[in-house]
Amino acid sequence: MNPILIEALRGDAVESRHAGALAIVDASGAVHTALGDIERPVFPRSAVKLLQALPLVASGAAEAYGLNDAELALACASHSGEPEHVATAAGLLARLGLDESALECGTQWPSREPVLRGMVARGELATPLHNNCSGKHSGFVCVACLMSRNTGAEAAEFVRGYVRAEHTVMREVSAALSAATGVDVEKAPRGTDGCSIPTFALPLRALALAFARCGTGQGLSDGHARAARRLRQAVAAAPFMVGGTDRFDTRVMQAWGERLFCKVGAEGVYCAALPELGLGVALKIDDGAVRAAEAAMAAVAQALLHTEDELLRGYSHLALRNWRGLDVGALRPARALAELSRA
Amino acid sequence: MNPILIEALRGDAVESRHAGALAIVDASGAVHTALGDIERPVFPRSAVKLLQALPLVASGAAEAYGLNDAELALACASHSGEPEHVATAAGLLARLGLDESALECGTQWPSREPVLRGMVARGELATPLHNNCSGKHSGFVCVACLMSRNTGAEAAEFVRGYVRAEHTVMREVSAALSAATGVDVEKAPRGTDGCSIPTFALPLRALALAFARCGTGQGLSDGHARAARRLRQAVAAAPFMVGGTDRFDTRVMQAWGERLFCKVGAEGVYCAALPELGLGVALKIDDGAVRAAEAAMAAVAQALLHTEDELLRGYSHLALRNWRGLDVGALRPARALAELSRA
Repeated sequence: MNPILIEALRGDAVESRHAGALAIVDASGAVHTALGDIERPVFPRSAVKLLQALPLVASGAAEAYGLNDAELALACASHSGEPEHVATAAGLLARLGLDESALECGTQWPSREPVLRGMVARGELATPLHNNCSGKHSGFVCVACLMSRNTGAEAAEFVRGYVRAEHTVMREVSAALSAATGVDVEKAPRGTDGCSIPTFALPLRALALAFARCGTGQGLSDGHARAARRLRQAVAAAPFMVGGTDRFDTRVMQAWGERLFCKVGAEGVYCAALPELGLGVALKIDDGAVRAAEAAMAAVAQALLHTEDELLRGYSHLALRNWRGLDVGALRPARALAELSRA
Repeated sequence: MNPILIEALRGDAVESRHAGALAIVDASGAVHTALGDIERPVFPRSAVKLLQALPLVASGAAEAYGLNDAELALACASHSGEPEHVATAAGLLARLGLDESALECGTQWPSREPVLRGMVARGELATPLHNNCSGKHSGFVCVACLMSRNTGAEAAEFVRGYVRAEHTVMREVSAALSAATGVDVEKAPRGTDGCSIPTFALPLRALALAFARCGTGQGLSDGHARAARRLRQAVAAAPFMVGGTDRFDTRVMQAWGERLFCKVGAEGVYCAALPELGLGVALKIDDGAVRAAEAAMAAVAQALLHTEDELLRGYSHLALRNWRGLDVGALRPARALAELSRA
């Protein structure tokens, strides 16, 4: 059993409990902190989008098609489907002579509620561009175009099916994951992600190592090291693109810039790189709750950065309000995590 | 630590795990099944709305104001804010000479997505009538009117503040909770519920006992026993009112009628009564996940009713689909719960 990482209080009493595991590792693979079972394979989901975007830069596709910071950040994003996100993905596809019909991520309504309501009020429908993964998929399409040495209609046949594990693009993405984590993902448990690409279950220790490597360049090929740095810089320069209005990742990276790269994944996963410390972080809330994953990530960041930053504390001790806006409780780090802060 | 009750699979691998506790108790208080810690206090939230509605019937208010099945079922409901729910609550308040301004539950948009989108498209705003608790609160207002021997503007001053623990109405509701569970709720940990009334943390054992009593009448005062039977009958006759389109409680009670009363509560709670078996059920998913609470409730119902009912199995083994509608995984009962079915 993994330890409780986050508790939800109602009044003064603990109402709910989130168990989980946490690995903090340096680029040599030395374990800085381990809470719970950090060897058990975990589907990292969208928390590894930075790793999945390494081929976009390392292949030369980003340079060939002139991707700017916003487009590179969007390639690492789980965005909220806001107009800027949609326009950025659409603009990139247009430069490739393609449109949203090239995307195989599926259609998803924007998670940003006012945006969704505005669309409904105007009678608009969601498209694959609104899918939180549309930037990552646009990046895959870039790689496919470069590989096919074509764009537009001439590239379409090669692009098609890029979400399948055996497609040349996805093989490159899987190879980047294997190289960064040091685990042959072809031998790992495999599932299908929300956006239809393969997701591989990997130990938190290996995921944390990958992010320590991405933060430092150490242990990566020159191409991947340069790509990781370029992507981190792009996200720090355009943090709105990686999430959106009021989103944890966006707000935290707006405040901390290149000092803290962090990325949420579905089902309670977080990965992070803290380059100045040479550390990578990977955590999984056993039950998959995002509220707890954000709170835990915020607590870890406070502990490692030795900060009492209000923004981070607002997430680690998130106030819970009811329908009348009354404060009815809060999240808080449980003992195992709270002790990390005092270490 | 409580045992894992529900696992979420992605492909063939377990992606997430929901621990929890389960009590099944008969009306004498004998424990039929205990998984995990059934003595630890749990905020039952909306899972005890039936108990909170006992005074509505036992006081004579339901009879005095001529509440029909739909209105009584709505008093036990966490409804989805669909037009029928809103109209039923509004109609009841109108008979009291009052309107939505009497409700102190706060404003909530309908949880039923197409209803919400229709309102947005028409430029409508949510009101307290759309709050999932508007029926329960309308019931409280009925009790207040009866107590004040007034309706309309003359009752308004007495009605006001009915959500406070010290209000005469809420004292009656708390007394009903104490009587049914056998626990003095005034001494229990207290929090504020989503709809602003007090919620008391009680052992699952005591909550299961209360529902065994409500299913059989045994151990309740005559008034409460009659009220419990009337409310169960009303919900069985008008199950749409207790939840709504595609909601677990509605679908299950449409199928099983008076054989199975069940009610969800926020943060992963379920309570149920199985009158023919003389059993009450209470369960809490530690992390608060509703998906797991529904799956666990469905598994318990299948085990106790010795059924392979497709509807219940559809929840205990809920298929998980991604944005393209592909099957990417499923929920399943973990060993502790699966063994219950084989017992």
